[in-house]
Amino acid sequence: MAKDYAKIALATHKKLRGKITIQPKATVATKDDLSTFYTPGVGAVSSYVAKHKEQMREYTMKGNVVAVVSDGSAVLGLGNIGPEGALPVMEGKCMLFKALAGVDAFPLVLDTQDTEQIIATVKNIAPVFGGINLEDIAAPRCFEIERRLQEELDIPVIHDDQHGTAMVVLSGIINAFRVVKKNLKKATIVVAGAGAAGQAIADMLLLFGVGDIVLVDSKGIISRQRTDLDEYKKKLLQRTNKQGLHGDLQVALAGADAFIGVSKGNTVTTAHIKSMAPRAIVFALANPLPEIMPDIARKAGAMVVATGRSDFANQVNNSLGFPGIFRGALDHHVRKITDVMLLRGAKNLAALVKEPTAQSIMPDTFDKRVVKAVARAIK
Amino acid sequence: MAKDYAKIALATHKKLRGKITIQPKATVATKDDLSTFYTPGVGAVSSYVAKHKEQMREYTMKGNVVAVVSDGSAVLGLGNIGPEGALPVMEGKCMLFKALAGVDAFPLVLDTQDTEQIIATVKNIAPVFGGINLEDIAAPRCFEIERRLQEELDIPVIHDDQHGTAMVVLSGIINAFRVVKKNLKKATIVVAGAGAAGQAIADMLLLFGVGDIVLVDSKGIISRQRTDLDEYKKKLLQRTNKQGLHGDLQVALAGADAFIGVSKGNTVTTAHIKSMAPRAIVFALANPLPEIMPDIARKAGAMVVATGRSDFANQVNNSLGFPGIFRGALDHHVRKITDVMLLRGAKNLAALVKEPTAQSIMPDTFDKRVVKAVARAIK
Repeated sequence: MAKDYAKIALATHKKLRGKITIQPKATVATKDDLSTFYTPGVGAVSSYVAKHKEQMREYTMKGNVVAVVSDGSAVLGLGNIGPEGALPVMEGKCMLFKALAGVDAFPLVLDTQDTEQIIATVKNIAPVFGGINLEDIAAPRCFEIERRLQEELDIPVIHDDQHGTAMVVLSGIINAFRVVKKNLKKATIVVAGAGAAGQAIADMLLLFGVGDIVLVDSKGIISRQRTDLDEYKKKLLQRTNKQGLHGDLQVALAGADAFIGVSKGNTVTTAHIKSMAPRAIVFALANPLPEIMPDIARKAGAMVVATGRSDFANQVNNSLGFPGIFRGALDHHVRKITDVMLLRGAKNLAALVKEPTAQSIMPDTFDKRVVKAVARAIK
Repeated sequence: MAKDYAKIALATHKKLRGKITIQPKATVATKDDLSTFYTPGVGAVSSYVAKHKEQMREYTMKGNVVAVVSDGSAVLGLGNIGPEGALPVMEGKCMLFKALAGVDAFPLVLDTQDTEQIIATVKNIAPVFGGINLEDIAAPRCFEIERRLQEELDIPVIHDDQHGTAMVVLSGIINAFRVVKKNLKKATIVVAGAGAAGQAIADMLLLFGVGDIVLVDSKGIISRQRTDLDEYKKKLLQRTNKQGLHGDLQVALAGADAFIGVSKGNTVTTAHIKSMAPRAIVFALANPLPEIMPDIARKAGAMVVATGRSDFANQVNNSLGFPGIFRGALDHHVRKITDVMLLRGAKNLAALVKEPTAQSIMPDTFDKRVVKAVARAIK
């Protein structure tokens, strides 16, 4: 029987009262320590840093600290649960940042969901941070927030739900195509879910050079016939759906080589999978309930199946991405994390699996090589 | 020869690259850990906390974490050096919070010195914190910021330069008066410096019931004859300077029982001290250079002399205050830290010195009883 992680998690969180703690880097136990770290010694350090701002990373914590910022508007499979509910997720992320990559990360959950307020707040608190990880912010607000902060701050800013996820998904897709022995550059991939994650995944696949992408949202295929598309979806349409498909998910999947779902649980059927091309690839990444359960997808003919969950084979999880992305950005003093860097990261990540099989396309989150492989790409 | 703390501090800070670090409270090394602390387990915790916001302190870090917030506009003796220069001081404070009181504290140095921007930013980041320690924000901006945040947030907010300092100063004054065997309720005390700290000290002394207070700023005694007083100074005038003095520091000090300087170094002379009442008390707290050096003050007739420095007897330093203030506020779920609580804290702090002498009126910062004595008062 599967463990009841909900129950275990509630008990463990209550016992620990939060998952991260702040520690001094040195002992403070004597007047001498006080004179060195606080007054009067710190005065010299403050004067020096004020005059040599470019050396802040050498004299303060800035060089190794990342803010994990969320407005709680699009949390996991939970939706708009607000800042309080978002905090356990952000603390978990901070925990992984340290455990996996040695990055000091602090969670900031915001009591506003207003685009301009979020931008102003992050800009105001930026001086102490070496990077900003935006997290679980709803589309389309997340696009504007990320773009503006990237323009206006001199530290790297990324919305991990978009770009971190896209990097990890591409690495899995690369290995899945190695397993099914098809050429990605000639493949058609259907992406279900055209929000923050779906759009970033499409962008990343296009950058890699995938044959064609068909995006599907809750109203059907993103097509020329649609009159309800926002500016972001219209822009993506210019580079996707080369075949000019129009209709529902069934129309999109007929003959497709791969399906990537970042949408809703239980939305893909046996009939959908059967209509795909032979040796189909199915990434059912909705959490916690996948678009289709792995055993059903395989019975319907899918050759490689991945989910976002840790209790099935082939877990496609962003914990393979963000620790290395920021480790690299901090170590290499990167001001902007670009898609070209993330594309390299995806290739490095995929290459860690020497001989991918249908049951094993992803490296292990705790494999020490993962963070290094990704960090190496971010420069 | 005195140690060169400037040199030692610069070398130590560069070696450590910042003074605090963030650590997971539990090991994260297996898929099982990941399922408990991150996905899928954390989903249950997030849902629960979103529905039971009042239990956030039990399931997240909020119950033990304080933000140390500064705009870098009034740092130590350094003035308006901006957020970058302020960070080493704020990190030092966070270090002491943990080392002395077990409080998790995180420094936020702000890239704005606009009152409304500071208020909005602190309100937006408040959900993760159990308390807000405002630090080194210039007067009069600090008054408005503190007042508004106290009104608009449901967690305790104090500007430590004002109220923490005032509590510690009062505790020292209580013991100094025990040494000189004078009645504080009949005493006249001159406070030089009528900024954030000076005004809060005057308020605290008045609450205790000191006979009379005479405030002096850079233009002289705060008196009815002055036409340049702002609203805050006008308000204080209603309760100070009962004798109706007018003139400079010399006029104020003639016959006074005690002097408290939170102004500028080297502004008090031998003649000033000689004009004070017998068994005079001199708190020359300007940092790093006191208003008058202790040996000179004593030679001129002062009986008890205190400074803000660790290299002289009787160090009056806010590190005796803030760790216990927030330990108490967090443990007792205090929503507003009041002057009445701080008055109790000052008395508790003073009582730790059983038999104060001219050379020993303050408890030691590392005395384990200090945090407990203060925390006990904040409820």
